Formats: sequence, C-alpha cells, structure tokens
Amino acid sequence: MTFDYTSIFRDDLPAAAVPFGGAPKYNFIGGNMDPENVPVAGLTDALTAVLAREGKDLAFYNLGTGALGYKPLREFIARTLKRKAAMDITPDNVLITSGSLQCLDLINDLLLNDGDTVIIEEATYGGAMTKLSAMGVNYIGTKLDDGGICMQTLEDNLKRLKDQGVTPKYIYAIPTIQNPTGTVMPIERRQRLLELADEYGVAVFEDDCYADLVWSGERPPAIYALDQQAGGRRVLYCGTFSKSIAPALRIGYIVADWAALGQMVPLKKDGGTGALAQMALAEFFNNQFDDYVAASTKSLKEKHDVMLEALASEFGTTAEVQPAAGGIFLWITLPDNVDTMKLFQAANADGVAINPGPEWTADGKANIHKMRLCFGSASIDDIRTGVAKLADICHREFGVPVRSGNVERN
Amino acid sequence: MTFDYTSIFRDDLPAAAVPFGGAPKYNFIGGNMDPENVPVAGLTDALTAVLAREGKDLAFYNLGTGALGYKPLREFIARTLKRKAAMDITPDNVLITSGSLQCLDLINDLLLNDGDTVIIEEATYGGAMTKLSAMGVNYIGTKLDDGGICMQTLEDNLKRLKDQGVTPKYIYAIPTIQNPTGTVMPIERRQRLLELADEYGVAVFEDDCYADLVWSGERPPAIYALDQQAGGRRVLYCGTFSKSIAPALRIGYIVADWAALGQMVPLKKDGGTGALAQMALAEFFNNQFDDYVAASTKSLKEKHDVMLEALASEFGTTAEVQPAAGGIFLWITLPDNVDTMKLFQAANADGVAINPGPEWTADGKANIHKMRLCFGSASIDDIRTGVAKLADICHREFGVPVRSGNVERN
Repeated sequence: MTFDYTSIFRDDLPAAAVPFGGAPKYNFIGGNMDPENVPVAGLTDALTAVLAREGKDLAFYNLGTGALGYKPLREFIARTLKRKAAMDITPDNVLITSGSLQCLDLINDLLLNDGDTVIIEEATYGGAMTKLSAMGVNYIGTKLDDGGICMQTLEDNLKRLKDQGVTPKYIYAIPTIQNPTGTVMPIERRQRLLELADEYGVAVFEDDCYADLVWSGERPPAIYALDQQAGGRRVLYCGTFSKSIAPALRIGYIVADWAALGQMVPLKKDGGTGALAQMALAEFFNNQFDDYVAASTKSLKEKHDVMLEALASEFGTTAEVQPAAGGIFLWITLPDNVDTMKLFQAANADGVAINPGPEWTADGKANIHKMRLCFGSASIDDIRTGVAKLADICHREFGVPVRSGNVERN
Repeated sequence: MTFDYTSIFRDDLPAAAVPFGGAPKYNFIGGNMDPENVPVAGLTDALTAVLAREGKDLAFYNLGTGALGYKPLREFIARTLKRKAAMDITPDNVLITSGSLQCLDLINDLLLNDGDTVIIEEATYGGAMTKLSAMGVNYIGTKLDDGGICMQTLEDNLKRLKDQGVTPKYIYAIPTIQNPTGTVMPIERRQRLLELADEYGVAVFEDDCYADLVWSGERPPAIYALDQQAGGRRVLYCGTFSKSIAPALRIGYIVADWAALGQMVPLKKDGGTGALAQMALAEFFNNQFDDYVAASTKSLKEKHDVMLEALASEFGTTAEVQPAAGGIFLWITLPDNVDTMKLFQAANADGVAINPGPEWTADGKANIHKMRLCFGSASIDDIRTGVAKLADICHREFGVPVRSGNVERN
C-alpha cells in the first residue's frame, strides 16, 4: 500500500498525547474532587426519578427543548445565582455547556481574532492561557494581591496598551476563589473593574468556577450583578458543576444576554450537551444543593487545613503560603533557587504530581519558584505523606527545606 | 454606561440563532428517534448498577482513566465492530466523543486547512458540508446510485482534480445506510474505493452513523476493515449511539490508529466526554445490544413502510422514492417545478418540517426539487397525517400532486 493518512496531518498540530499511564499516587494537580464526597445514592435516586418522568425525551436532540439546555437546570442556575450572587437573570440568560472549558471556547470564539490582546491575572488558570495561545491571542498579566487584581496596575496596563494603540478585548478575572491564589475580590474592586472596563472599552470575562466553594458559604455579588445594577452589558459570566459536584459530569454554563447567547449557540457545534448529566444535576440539586455543597465544602476545608499544616511542618519557612478562602488549591512560593519545572519532573518520577509555577502564570520565568498544589481528590493521609515526600525531593534537588518535622536534614 | 460587549463581537460570526419556538407538529427532520423506543427502565437499571459500583470515580476527570473515554464502553465498541463489521481493533483504537459531530470536528481539525479540497457524496449529511464551509474547505460532490458512490465518477473526479494540481484530503463516505439515499455500498465498491485512495493519495473518512439500523441486521465489512486486511492506514472511521439508542446522550466514537488518536486527543478541548452517558451505555448494551437494536430497527422499518405507503397514496407518481435499506429517512424526488426551499417555508408555516434538497446536496441548485423526510421520531399517525398535509401544501404551491388518496384535486 502506498498511501498512509499520517502523511497528510496538518503540519501545525499540537504535540501528540502520550498513552495514559495511570494517575500518580500523590495527585496534587487538576480539578479532581474527593471520591468519598460524590453523592452516589442521591444521583441514582435523582436519575431514577427524572428518567421515569422524562426519559422518553432522550429520543430528541436537546430533549426537544432547544439549544440552551435542559430547562429545569437553567431554572435552578438562575434561581441560585440570584440568591447567592445577586444576579437578576432568567433561565433564558443561561446556556448549558459541555464543561466550563467549552465556556472558554465559546466566549473566545465570540470575541477574539488571531493577534488580539486580552488582560489576565498574573497567576491564572493554565488552560485559559493554552487556549489563548492556540488562537494566536496575546495576554498581559496583571498583578494580584490578597484582594485579587490590583486596580492601579490594571489601570496602568490599560493606559500603557492604549498608548500603544491596543484595545484589549476582555479582562479575564476569577474573582471568587482566584485560581491559583484562593482569594476573593472585594466589592469595591469589582466596581472599579467595571469603571475601568467602561473607560477603556473592554469587556469582562468573569470565571466563577470555584465560587460555590467559599469556606464561609457567602460570596460577594458577582461582577455580572454589579454591571446589571448599573444597567451595563460588559460582563460574560461562566460557572460549572465540576467543582460543586463532580468533573466527569462535564456540565458548565454561560450567563449572558441573549444578544451574546444567540451568537454563541451556532458556535456550539456539538449538537447539544449530554442530557443525562443535566437531568441528574437538576433533579438532585433542586432538593439538596445547599446541604450537599455545605458538606462538601466542610470536607475540602479540612483537607485545606491538613495541607497547610503539612506544608508548615515539612517545609517550614521554606514555603510561603497564604491560606485560601475556599476552593481546592494552594499557591506556594519557594526560595528563588528552586526551579519548579525541575521539581515537577523529579516529583513526577516519585509519584507526586504538582503544577509548576510557569504553567499557571503569564510570566513563567518570573514564577519559576512557585507551584500550585491541589487538595481536592487526595485523601488526608495521602496529603500528609505526599507533602512530606515532596519536601524530601525538594531537599534532594535544591537543598531546601533544611528542616522538616523538626528534624534537621543533612 | 458607554461600553457594551456587542460592539466587539467578531465580525465574521455565523448568523445568530433564533430563540427556540417549540418543535413542529409533523417533524420530519433531524436525527430524532422514537420516544416510545427509549429503554427507560433498562437505562435506569444500568445506571443504578454502574453508579453503585463505580459512581465515586465521577470525582475524576475522565473517571481517572485517561482521555480516550470509559474503558468498558470502548471494549464494547471494539467487540461489536469486530463482530458486525469485521474490524480488527482493540479498545485503544477507540476515542469516545461528545456526539458524532465532534468526530467530524476532530477529523477535520486533524487533516484540513483553509483552502483544502475534499470529495463528498453528491447528496450527503448537511452538517458535514456546513462544517467544511465554515473552515473554508472546498467540496466536490460525487454521483450516487443505488450502490452508493459510483466508482467511475469518483475516478473521473480524482483524475480531473489531479490534472488541476489538486490532491483532495479525503473522500467522505457514508457507505452503510447512506444519508440521505438509504443505500448500502457493496463490498466490491468498498475495495475499489481503497484502490483509488491509494492511486490518488487520498484518505477515506468513513461515517458509519446509521450502520446499526440495517433492516436485515447484517452489514458488509467496514471499509476500515478491508483497509486493515490489506495492511493499510487509509481510513478514519466514526460511529455514534445517537441512532442506535438516543441522540440526547451525545456519545459518538472515532476508530483509528493511535498515530491519529494521539494527535486528536489534544484537539478535543472539552475536558472529556460526559461520563454518565458512557457508563449507562456500556452497562446497558453489554447485556442487551442485539435485542434492543433489533426491536428498535423493527419499529423503524414499520414507520419506513408507513411513510412509503403514505407517499405513494398522497403523492402517487409525483414523488419518486426508493425504499431505504435501513435508517430513519427517505430521499424523494419531486417534479422539476417544485422548489423545495419554498415548499419548506410553506410547510413550516403549517407545522410540517422537511429538509429541502439544497441543504443536503453538494450542488443545491441541481437538487432543488428533492427533499429528505425523516420518520424516526414521528408516530405512525403523524407520519400519515403529515405526509397528507405536505401533499396538500405541495399541491397548493406547485399544482402537484394532482391526485391524492384516489381523490382528484381541483
């Protein structure tokens, strides 16, 4: 045979995947959750009830009810965001997506062309940067502190870009449980962000994927809500159920005006999002969202505290880490001589998975001594053992920490 | 407020969606299936069993088992395609996708650049053409008869393109229950297609989405299988469970070598396909695929026969229609003076939905008097009433048919 399809692959493909080789033993990366917290019985009951009532509708694309998604789930989202984030929306402002990664794709497809510029947080979700790079979009990182984006730096960046003749398309913000720093942006900054969006003619992309997981159970009004109160149309909002229940369900959502949703529906080329998961979530959460999320968040908080303690005990002053206000990760600064890209490789070989700083920051070089550790899926024992193992590996590779668990290392 | 995000939408967006206005009463379009055939109890039992056993794994992206998808489902697909279509594959040759539309996107992304050319069947799945057009890819239609693609015309097209210095990237074929003509390509033509692929350096994209629904229950070896037997790597294969069970589950699959799948995994940007539907299908079908598909196909055959009878009775010789060998649609040729784009609009206003020929053909103008009617989701009564209504509308608009149900029209 003379012809082989590998000879005609596009020549600008991303690197090929490697075959799956199993999960690392100490898995401190990714948005995985705690298997013990999956409400298996509740989901089963929900599915049994909703399928008995509406299972025949599976015969129709989108259950025969249109491209926005399963209406009871959109109703639940609208009601919950109104109650918890002060967003004054109807189910017709909600587009159900195949996970929040599809939210990023749809909002990017709506707004961005090759060569465009956007503003992101200096440390942010790595997947968002990967998608921007693949589209040929430039991103500018903006300084963060313990209240999220620093508004003066944001203004300076916008001004500098304007002087260069560049109008960025959007400001990408994760205001409630920032990824990876775990902070919550106060309301005054949210207001200021909207003022700057007006002044510089920039949209706001509000990614609220972790907002259900605030330890206190209370979150500020969404930037979307504040924009609404001011009569604006500056904010495209996205959320997910991956964190508040389980990522394998692949259900996210975009909240926006129909002016935007109506344009995004034709860009959503997958024939609709899987209906079983939508039905299960709506049925389950309509009864027990608050109770379930409260229990799940309490469990995450315990793990957060265990990881903080383990870091203090194993790394001591070598690791600088600020407690998170919620979520599933900690952002850790190590001494300047620690190269987390190398630490990542050495740890990986020993079954410990970490996110090296450069993968999670706009300026990778400046953040090579930082790392993100996720605590959502590991057990408490594995958090303790894995962090101790990581300290060993770090000491072996970089000479720090010099003390662990009150024991001097040699 | 001065800024509004609608001012920065990309200027090359497709037309916006219109808000969902409800399904038409007589719905003869789309891949919808019969609600009475959805195995609600079976799916519920399957979900109950699989969630009790593996529900905790929902806490992990892809259930913690890698990007190809839920392994028991990949095992089922490999086993079934071996048995029914002679494909000698393992679960690692199967990538589960979020519906077969994602198969089209992934294979297109793997191979096609703006300006490329592909060969399609002269009448084919409208969604495939929409996707190609959106990518700036040219498509050339090839003549069909009751055995699918006419190989002489295919060879002539390939030769003509070669003389023009054009090498098409792939031949897109729906060989088993061709959409919309409902034919099955005989094995000799499948062999000849592969020879031509070699001779002209072209890949084959085999879309087998309806292959489970052959009335006889038997299908020829897949083109993929014949290619394998010849030691080749010319064919990328796709299938779906939308037709063999229910489209709202959104589960399709690509079969290919790892050389192709490993490149497609990074192009699949959705964080994995929904796990609940994958689990439900694997659990349900592992026990009762053959029985379920046989019963469902029997019911579709009854509807097919009812639609044929209704067309004969209401349109008489005005409608030329060949019985289908399986599937959910009929392809109908009306007299030259009937403009199905106009018929589509008039029928739509009266609650009858049809696919006008131009939406389903490479050369729309030449097929303006043809139409596709789907019988998968409508009840037998609605098929009879809807076809009679369509004949009325057609007579009103175009003066044909002149007789319906033995009654002369005036």
